[in-house]
Amino acid sequence: MATLIRGGTVVNADRAFRADVLCEGDKIVAVGPGLAAPAGAEIVDAGGQYVMPGGIDPHTHMNLPFMGTVTQDDFFTGTAAGLAGGNTTIIDFVIPNPQQPLLEAYHQWRGWAEKAAGDYTFHVAITWWSEQVHEDMGTLVRKHGVNSFKHFMAYKNAIMADDETLVKSFRRALELGAIPTVHAENGELVYQLQQDLLRQGITGPRAHPLSRPPAVEAEAANRAIAIANVLKTPLYIVHVSCKESLDAITRARAAGQRVYGEALAGHLIVDDSVYDHPDFDFAAGHVMSPPFRSREHQKALWQGLQGGNLHTTATDHCTFCAEQKAAGRNDFTKIPNGCGGVEDRMAVIWDEGVNSGKLTPSEFVRVTSANAAQIFNIYPRKGVIAAGSDADIVVWDPAGSRTISAKTQFAKGGFNVFEGRTVKGIPSTTVAAGKVVFHRGELRAVEGAGRHIDRPAFVPTAP
Amino acid sequence: MATLIRGGTVVNADRAFRADVLCEGDKIVAVGPGLAAPAGAEIVDAGGQYVMPGGIDPHTHMNLPFMGTVTQDDFFTGTAAGLAGGNTTIIDFVIPNPQQPLLEAYHQWRGWAEKAAGDYTFHVAITWWSEQVHEDMGTLVRKHGVNSFKHFMAYKNAIMADDETLVKSFRRALELGAIPTVHAENGELVYQLQQDLLRQGITGPRAHPLSRPPAVEAEAANRAIAIANVLKTPLYIVHVSCKESLDAITRARAAGQRVYGEALAGHLIVDDSVYDHPDFDFAAGHVMSPPFRSREHQKALWQGLQGGNLHTTATDHCTFCAEQKAAGRNDFTKIPNGCGGVEDRMAVIWDEGVNSGKLTPSEFVRVTSANAAQIFNIYPRKGVIAAGSDADIVVWDPAGSRTISAKTQFAKGGFNVFEGRTVKGIPSTTVAAGKVVFHRGELRAVEGAGRHIDRPAFVPTAP
Amino acid sequence: MATLIRGGTVVNADRAFRADVLCEGDKIVAVGPGLAAPAGAEIVDAGGQYVMPGGIDPHTHMNLPFMGTVTQDDFFTGTAAGLAGGNTTIIDFVIPNPQQPLLEAYHQWRGWAEKAAGDYTFHVAITWWSEQVHEDMGTLVRKHGVNSFKHFMAYKNAIMADDETLVKSFRRALELGAIPTVHAENGELVYQLQQDLLRQGITGPRAHPLSRPPAVEAEAANRAIAIANVLKTPLYIVHVSCKESLDAITRARAAGQRVYGEALAGHLIVDDSVYDHPDFDFAAGHVMSPPFRSREHQKALWQGLQGGNLHTTATDHCTFCAEQKAAGRNDFTKIPNGCGGVEDRMAVIWDEGVNSGKLTPSEFVRVTSANAAQIFNIYPRKGVIAAGSDADIVVWDPAGSRTISAKTQFAKGGFNVFEGRTVKGIPSTTVAAGKVVFHRGELRAVEGAGRHIDRPAFVPTAP
Amino acid sequence: MATLIRGGTVVNADRAFRADVLCEGDKIVAVGPGLAAPAGAEIVDAGGQYVMPGGIDPHTHMNLPFMGTVTQDDFFTGTAAGLAGGNTTIIDFVIPNPQQPLLEAYHQWRGWAEKAAGDYTFHVAITWWSEQVHEDMGTLVRKHGVNSFKHFMAYKNAIMADDETLVKSFRRALELGAIPTVHAENGELVYQLQQDLLRQGITGPRAHPLSRPPAVEAEAANRAIAIANVLKTPLYIVHVSCKESLDAITRARAAGQRVYGEALAGHLIVDDSVYDHPDFDFAAGHVMSPPFRSREHQKALWQGLQGGNLHTTATDHCTFCAEQKAAGRNDFTKIPNGCGGVEDRMAVIWDEGVNSGKLTPSEFVRVTSANAAQIFNIYPRKGVIAAGSDADIVVWDPAGSRTISAKTQFAKGGFNVFEGRTVKGIPSTTVAAGKVVFHRGELRAVEGAGRHIDRPAFVPTAP
Repeated sequence: MATLIRGGTVVNADRAFRADVLCEGDKIVAVGPGLAAPAGAEIVDAGGQYVMPGGIDPHTHMNLPFMGTVTQDDFFTGTAAGLAGGNTTIIDFVIPNPQQPLLEAYHQWRGWAEKAAGDYTFHVAITWWSEQVHEDMGTLVRKHGVNSFKHFMAYKNAIMADDETLVKSFRRALELGAIPTVHAENGELVYQLQQDLLRQGITGPRAHPLSRPPAVEAEAANRAIAIANVLKTPLYIVHVSCKESLDAITRARAAGQRVYGEALAGHLIVDDSVYDHPDFDFAAGHVMSPPFRSREHQKALWQGLQGGNLHTTATDHCTFCAEQKAAGRNDFTKIPNGCGGVEDRMAVIWDEGVNSGKLTPSEFVRVTSANAAQIFNIYPRKGVIAAGSDADIVVWDPAGSRTISAKTQFAKGGFNVFEGRTVKGIPSTTVAAGKVVFHRGELRAVEGAGRHIDRPAFVPTAP
Repeated sequence: MATLIRGGTVVNADRAFRADVLCEGDKIVAVGPGLAAPAGAEIVDAGGQYVMPGGIDPHTHMNLPFMGTVTQDDFFTGTAAGLAGGNTTIIDFVIPNPQQPLLEAYHQWRGWAEKAAGDYTFHVAITWWSEQVHEDMGTLVRKHGVNSFKHFMAYKNAIMADDETLVKSFRRALELGAIPTVHAENGELVYQLQQDLLRQGITGPRAHPLSRPPAVEAEAANRAIAIANVLKTPLYIVHVSCKESLDAITRARAAGQRVYGEALAGHLIVDDSVYDHPDFDFAAGHVMSPPFRSREHQKALWQGLQGGNLHTTATDHCTFCAEQKAAGRNDFTKIPNGCGGVEDRMAVIWDEGVNSGKLTPSEFVRVTSANAAQIFNIYPRKGVIAAGSDADIVVWDPAGSRTISAKTQFAKGGFNVFEGRTVKGIPSTTVAAGKVVFHRGELRAVEGAGRHIDRPAFVPTAP
Repeated sequence: MATLIRGGTVVNADRAFRADVLCEGDKIVAVGPGLAAPAGAEIVDAGGQYVMPGGIDPHTHMNLPFMGTVTQDDFFTGTAAGLAGGNTTIIDFVIPNPQQPLLEAYHQWRGWAEKAAGDYTFHVAITWWSEQVHEDMGTLVRKHGVNSFKHFMAYKNAIMADDETLVKSFRRALELGAIPTVHAENGELVYQLQQDLLRQGITGPRAHPLSRPPAVEAEAANRAIAIANVLKTPLYIVHVSCKESLDAITRARAAGQRVYGEALAGHLIVDDSVYDHPDFDFAAGHVMSPPFRSREHQKALWQGLQGGNLHTTATDHCTFCAEQKAAGRNDFTKIPNGCGGVEDRMAVIWDEGVNSGKLTPSEFVRVTSANAAQIFNIYPRKGVIAAGSDADIVVWDPAGSRTISAKTQFAKGGFNVFEGRTVKGIPSTTVAAGKVVFHRGELRAVEGAGRHIDRPAFVPTAP
Repeated sequence: MATLIRGGTVVNADRAFRADVLCEGDKIVAVGPGLAAPAGAEIVDAGGQYVMPGGIDPHTHMNLPFMGTVTQDDFFTGTAAGLAGGNTTIIDFVIPNPQQPLLEAYHQWRGWAEKAAGDYTFHVAITWWSEQVHEDMGTLVRKHGVNSFKHFMAYKNAIMADDETLVKSFRRALELGAIPTVHAENGELVYQLQQDLLRQGITGPRAHPLSRPPAVEAEAANRAIAIANVLKTPLYIVHVSCKESLDAITRARAAGQRVYGEALAGHLIVDDSVYDHPDFDFAAGHVMSPPFRSREHQKALWQGLQGGNLHTTATDHCTFCAEQKAAGRNDFTKIPNGCGGVEDRMAVIWDEGVNSGKLTPSEFVRVTSANAAQIFNIYPRKGVIAAGSDADIVVWDPAGSRTISAKTQFAKGGFNVFEGRTVKGIPSTTVAAGKVVFHRGELRAVEGAGRHIDRPAFVPTAP
């Protein structure tokens, strides 16, 4: 069956232009003015609206077992919420326990993901090192469509990768044509600061940001960049939250190093005053790592997106409900880390970024879709409105408005860090794999309709 | 008549892919695998080669009256040499004398350009200020396809724009949807240093770089950036030659300011040891402003291109012959400033940039064509291989090789700053406006075949 | 007559130690433990207190004719207020009108200064250029104890020095062994922004900072630094008020350039919210140039002092009363620029700097006295507690406290930018030229007791 | 017995002045013009010369057991060589083996040092962590005159301190009033690079710098700075050898952090071309860590000294003879790391720094003596020519000249990295503890005459 999106302004990373978009099966088959609708085609009226590549959230955690519990959103509810927000692809994470074989974990996650309503693909975390891990990285790249490996520099005594693991895994990734990524926080400093704070009796959510100051994040970002520099690998740094980390990236890029940075919608919009809130549930609801930062850091992150030193926007979508967060009522280190956002990312970034003039519509497409597709090598299948590309499209109504609330959201968890914020500019229709899955507030997500997207290894361009 | 480019790898700024390219009239009409050749089509075999958007040199001076003489290359020989080098469009400069009406100068240059063999368009220099200049800027933008204005911060007592002119012109450009550009050197410092050197009896070409140290350039770059910052205009800085200027751009961009930087092929490849040469003709042949710099600056410029802080590559093609250069035999300040390069830019940048791994082929396309088209608002007419775009194409043979020499070049002037350099990676065929104008060393340039390219003013993207 | 300061902790720039200090005539004659009091000596009990070199305020304007009026404080009231604040020397400014001979202006100011109660010396401003100015600079250095020349880069159509004057004067200063100083603001941008704001009907004090954003200051700082770099002169930048200017200094210093920066007590303590005040008198009372800045700039200035990229603290003491300020009631550009502070500088810097742990007592001495003495070549006559030095001493009571108010101050003008601020750490006794001139709130200033301090030209250290 | 140094120009960190210097016992008792010589005083004629505080080398390794062997210079020969070079105090290192009690190692080193001819004091390395180490740090500070602890971030599988040790030791140092210092190189990266190089068959001295690129050093410097930032401790970074490390320090200092940097005379003068030398003995003779760097790094280090971002100069004097170096003939990782220099530091820095105009004589005193005394809290006992200070003095002949050679040096090891360099500006006389120990080439060092210098903990300045 065909879908014709008519009368809109197509926005790609490189330009915007008036054109209709015709989808057949799961692909875009034509982009141009005045396209005729095939018989039986569903017609989407995009008049006065933008037609953009569906969002790619390169950082989510659906169905994640973490800190002794499991996130509220599974792959169905999480990807469905994403579709409602104009997001058609997620990149989630396989996180093996230390000593767990990578492939075992990989298959576990693939199983959980079968119910997804939208497309998905996986970064695989390297949480330990052995010859088998070295081998399995190869298998994942060659046979399972994985081209990125994640390293947690935080979470000491759990999934933290030490320098030896970082060096060995980065080098292996290079050899395989995969890109290393890092969660950059110095786990030793976090651990010591946590112990200090607890010893001093500072046990509430306010202690959380105190245990993870910007210098802790910047140290790790800088270290990962140095390792990548020495080994000549590219590097992608997830959830850059502070000016000091961004500065490390900016310096490296200015010296020609291929370092990419990701900003979270939450870090771009929400500041650290949330931790001062007297209500534990509210404050704990915002506990994630890195924590929210003060306004000067937000300003820096926007500048990073504008200047091309940050490349993608994500959410780290990882939802826990109040009961789960309550595990840390007497000890902030036991609050499960994580917040949602996959449903709201595009709208809050449009509202704050495009409406304010910080970003053009094309730049919005870059940071919400095209760059992620490029960096993780699924472009032009994803990330662009072009004939031959996947028919993953969001029709964006710049005049539409919505007030964000946990009460009305599709995502689970009963909490939203953007609660009460009214955004102007919202998805009116989402098309995924050629089908209208969301239209004017109505979600038509289908469990299991999402597909695993293989991401090929990087190879040089040959003539 | 049609032209079919068959069997190559199309390289655009965003990706590379195997495809044939079909041109009809002056447009590309199809890009895809296995395209059928229309009857009578000229077939270009691109097997084992790259098929890229024709180069855009955003900085040339053909037929320029300067320092009491006129450049050797006129618009025919200059654009023809460009075609031989894979360059299909130039952006030249209209430079009114102080007090000369802008439109008068504009029409003068348009007249000179009629003989061009390749497409051309013009930046217009603002060398003085009056209400009439203010008016004429509007006329140029609205009626004559001009969307960029150039300001010389050097050349005191001649065409130098003082701060008052810069402020007024930048603000006017913003109002009109045009982008201001600057030649960044502090003219007062240059003048004083020149006088000092002459007083000390240092009169030869070696004095030229001494009178224009990096700090002189960086000062002006920083000043122009500050003015643009305060007035909230974009800014394009031509021929960034030194680390300190680049640093100013990098800082501004990191703070979210829309500043663009251009590097010259010469500055990327040639270092300042040329001024130490005992032969006056050789040393004077390299006199241009800013001068060639030491190797650490070249390294920085490449890093700027890699990291996205420099955006375009140009030549400042401005050829004077030995007799003309000899005017400054006893006084370096009288040596006509200028060097060639339009014929060699793409090859030297490929050789030094792509062969070394500094740039990918897609990045090469960005810095030789796509970015210039975007910044000066002629994209996607120029700067991309896509259906509907102008059929300006270079077929690039990565295995081909050539030794650059003034003896064998098409450009005039009898001098080449890349003399003797053997490059690997050369244009095998150039297609301009749908016609093969260069093929395997044979130049088929036609006087008058080039067209003036109107560049529309910038307007916000509307849905 | 002798004065013995007994029982205190002497604090010099390099160290602190328990010692008595004996003054005879106008000199310190001994520093050491357990000094015997000569017969008839006045004994000052410094028990539990610090004994520090008297403050040097390197930037004041007493008796200044400016913007059609004259400051409230003349050399007597101004220096007397300084003594009350622990400040024993000021460096004021001779500011010739354009075309006025330097020596004429110099003698004018020397005449006005004869009534000073504390020591004084003069920077001389270069507001225009001619051969005579070049000559007179030599005379001032050789015969009149001047070793610094000031350049206003702001105040277009008045005292602004253009680049030609800057270059010629900096070079002349170098030749003479004098140091150039600059007021760094781009006068053209200020002028254009002022006109814009007035055109838009924004005429109140709030427009003042809008017409002088940080980029305007940073541009000029960077330009002056570039000129100094090219000419190889040292440079002193007065009243650095923003992060961007400081960054320019920091970069230059990191590259080995001898650039010095001055911060004003006001800029360190007061933020730009004062301009939002609905009361014209209050807001206008804070109008000075550069204006007060937001808190992030204050933070940066303190970091500059801590890290050694800023060297001195001053006040730009320049007092106008409400009636004078009212001249700009309908046009902010007509508000006389200037605020007081000479009486409060040391106390507010101690309170905010030392009490908070940002500065050690020795560092406090550096930034309030020793560095100014070194940079302007009156060290060790001033700036240190040592035998042979001038007996200019402040006994500092770290436990003493005072609430600053225009109502209780000695300075004129009826306004105080630190109004209502309670400081801990105040001068208990000031000794100037060997005499107790202030003691526990009682001011014993004597009109005419101050002396002109000749400052010799810089010469290399010879063995 | 007294010594009178007559007719010279005393140079201290803050100024230079004509004065005689009288020493009695081991102290300076008077500094002033025209001092009378006590009966029997030894008279040193300093006419036409500078009289400066004796050098303090804050980084030496005498009698060091390292990499299976022991350095050639013991505490007698090493300190004696220092005296010949105008250096009167060394700060050496106690380096416990992992698991070795700190006090045991401390007493071992104190025993070895008894034969020293010049004064000495010790940094103590923290190479492992336990409650006992925590306790012993307290004992060393309170009872043994130690106020600095060293941490090796390199030398994996040997004395490398991991992040846990760094954090715990830095925090303990802060509590005790001691300053942490680091050898900044990422030991894991060095180790992996070494293994890579050996695997590739690159086994000669040229591999040494390849295994320790600047990024490896900068990473560690940045990490140590981050830890110090988070814990609010000061930090001293030994042997900063590259621009990138210096940049990390410069950034931290600009943000107000109390970080100090040390440059080695070798790194300031010698470049990495030495490793290309075909003679193994020559190349291996230069193997030390960090390695010598390219010229751009040397330029940066000098700028660091000029701009105040580097504070001290040292040597890391650690001499091995050719036979010892030969242990690594087939494996560069087995070449004992270390070079000499204590005898030449002051002369090469004067020659390159003062003669070139980079440093003034007072700045020379800062970076060779006064700053080290301040940072390690032995000022004003050391580091200044003043009554009451130790009579450690070098009389410096700016016209004297010497060609450095291993053949004529007093130090052992048979090698000199400055071999063949002719310096202008040399010590004519060294006075240590009041005695002339070197005069015009004649060394009068006395075994055992050196004393251990207790360095008190840091305490806040109290009035």
